[in-house]
Amino acid sequence: MENFVFHSPAKMVFGKDQVERLPELLKSHDVKKMLLVYGRKSIKELGIYDKVQDIADELGIELYEESGVRPNPELESVKSGRRTVIQHGIDFILAAGGGSVIDCAKAIAFAAFKKEDAIWDVFLKKSQVHRAIPLGVIVTLAATGSETNGNTVISNDAKRAKRSIKNQALIPQFAIIDPSYTMHVDRYHTVAGSIDIMMHIFEQYFSPTKRTETSDYMSLGILKSVIENTNKLLLEGEDYHTRANISWASTLALNWILQQGKKGDWASHRLVYPPAAKHGLTHGYSLSAMQPTWMRMALERNEEAMRPRLEQLGTEVFSKETSESTIEAIEILFNSWGAPTSIEDLGIEIDDEDAIKFARQATLLGPIGNMFTIDEYMAEAFYKRL
Amino acid sequence: MENFVFHSPAKMVFGKDQVERLPELLKSHDVKKMLLVYGRKSIKELGIYDKVQDIADELGIELYEESGVRPNPELESVKSGRRTVIQHGIDFILAAGGGSVIDCAKAIAFAAFKKEDAIWDVFLKKSQVHRAIPLGVIVTLAATGSETNGNTVISNDAKRAKRSIKNQALIPQFAIIDPSYTMHVDRYHTVAGSIDIMMHIFEQYFSPTKRTETSDYMSLGILKSVIENTNKLLLEGEDYHTRANISWASTLALNWILQQGKKGDWASHRLVYPPAAKHGLTHGYSLSAMQPTWMRMALERNEEAMRPRLEQLGTEVFSKETSESTIEAIEILFNSWGAPTSIEDLGIEIDDEDAIKFARQATLLGPIGNMFTIDEYMAEAFYKRL
Repeated sequence: MENFVFHSPAKMVFGKDQVERLPELLKSHDVKKMLLVYGRKSIKELGIYDKVQDIADELGIELYEESGVRPNPELESVKSGRRTVIQHGIDFILAAGGGSVIDCAKAIAFAAFKKEDAIWDVFLKKSQVHRAIPLGVIVTLAATGSETNGNTVISNDAKRAKRSIKNQALIPQFAIIDPSYTMHVDRYHTVAGSIDIMMHIFEQYFSPTKRTETSDYMSLGILKSVIENTNKLLLEGEDYHTRANISWASTLALNWILQQGKKGDWASHRLVYPPAAKHGLTHGYSLSAMQPTWMRMALERNEEAMRPRLEQLGTEVFSKETSESTIEAIEILFNSWGAPTSIEDLGIEIDDEDAIKFARQATLLGPIGNMFTIDEYMAEAFYKRL
Repeated sequence: MENFVFHSPAKMVFGKDQVERLPELLKSHDVKKMLLVYGRKSIKELGIYDKVQDIADELGIELYEESGVRPNPELESVKSGRRTVIQHGIDFILAAGGGSVIDCAKAIAFAAFKKEDAIWDVFLKKSQVHRAIPLGVIVTLAATGSETNGNTVISNDAKRAKRSIKNQALIPQFAIIDPSYTMHVDRYHTVAGSIDIMMHIFEQYFSPTKRTETSDYMSLGILKSVIENTNKLLLEGEDYHTRANISWASTLALNWILQQGKKGDWASHRLVYPPAAKHGLTHGYSLSAMQPTWMRMALERNEEAMRPRLEQLGTEVFSKETSESTIEAIEILFNSWGAPTSIEDLGIEIDDEDAIKFARQATLLGPIGNMFTIDEYMAEAFYKRL
């Protein structure tokens, strides 16, 4: 185990109708002028939009909006939100939606203290985040876990790039996590969400750090719940408690509590960004399609660390004994949910030119991954092998 | 799953030599006058005492002491610490030691805002905690998990009572958790600590709340690590990483993250307090001696909820299929560590008069437990059955 400092100050307000606590939460932060960040229709259909309007009226909060935030949120939304924050002297940002909306809100929160031209520099690690407007979250999907961490992923269409940062100042003050909001989600997006949760666990579980049993068993426990409950949902149909267990797993999976004392890998997330940006892929499905190849390469490149972890994963979760059969079990599971496990399944092609371009983008800031190191050439090999 | 609000703002500073971060932690809280709360020799032997003195000198912090805090910390230490806090205008409390020292420090922290006579009323729930002096912790044992939660357990010798409270204001600002401090701990106290950790997990795992798989599997994962690592330590000898995994499990086991969305039970903890207070029993051993009887009674009184949980525990952790064989496996494990699983093993006797008295004390504030309800008569039956 490695040394660590873990500070997770977001207040988690979990369960049915917990939006009723929003007034007390906003009052405790003495909110005067608030920016509501959201996507399109979903928060209106869920009644959140009207609720927030009513609460703002009641509390005398001036409410402004940044709407139309798309999946894979774009830098232009961040810039637009930033202008509203500065123009009106916004003192609190409320994100209502899925991970994209939350990520956009976090980026607006720090962008308010940067020049417009300097926002992207932060994602290129040329500039640092020191401050951010405080923000709160109402999360409507179980997937990204963005609701209690300081991470944000933003796309820059002009540069055909998608990049992430992580900063303690971007951790929301509170996160309202009402699993009943996820009950409207269709099978396609539910499965994509569960895969995203599983992948967050995998990225932290597949670590070169030794002697991390407490974290490992905890991670595999949460993984088991995600798999069991997703199976249950697909086989037995809609149920609040099934959704609630998935929602809680989703938050825990990227609250960073699972990665304390160890290195995560996170190469898979970086590797899927370039093809996802080019083809507009759903995040979860780009991961399920490419992760098996990463696991096989990791097993070849760092067998000493990867084999025991795959075997433990197999034993604890999939009733499999070997590394190879564990990888196959994951593919079979994803397929049984209707998720792709190859780029053919995704319906895209990656030619040699793409592979070279993607490899350059994925390793733009240097080699990625910890289980094994992926430099530009290794990344190119990865894309060609898909 | 039930609704919940979970807020765990303690900064966890984990690992070898993390006491080196104490200056920055104290600076961030602008500490001017600090009360150091500790027990007897151990923090001096570990070098923590001198370190804190040096850091206080360096930072110009006026340092005061409340020392000699005993295991099962007593109300008189709380009163004494309170007087020092008030007399010198202490603005920060630093607890250095095990759970008893931390609990004493927490009680001093709120006692500073109460009249001396009113401190015990808080433990009798006749008075509320609204404020507390901020505190930090350097924990030297892996057992109570007190370092990141708002719980404190205090003994009142004059009333032969031991009582606990829980309040968000008592959560430490930071907890320095250096597993290397636990490397001097002898077998007797190491085992007592591991049992305490396991019992914290059991108290949360054995819940009447249904559909809590995410929490359940996470809890069982941490439990598995505690058992594996304690076995490893006893069989293979001292090792930093083994200790580190136990320390991290200890913190997680009573950070309350395992009990979100469900009711815990906690009757066993309440039931062992009266005999522990009378006979001065080591907390972990009083639990191992009495918990098997609680499990058997729970299985009789609420079989519907208890049996599936025991079976799951058996399957996931002990390779057992039935409830009864799972309870036996726990007893065999405790015995293999040299821990008592009966009051005969503990070397005490509980006669009918004791049983009546203990029952009254344990249920003084009303019936206890959630897996099944233990009123005064049921508690008496429990003590007689031991």
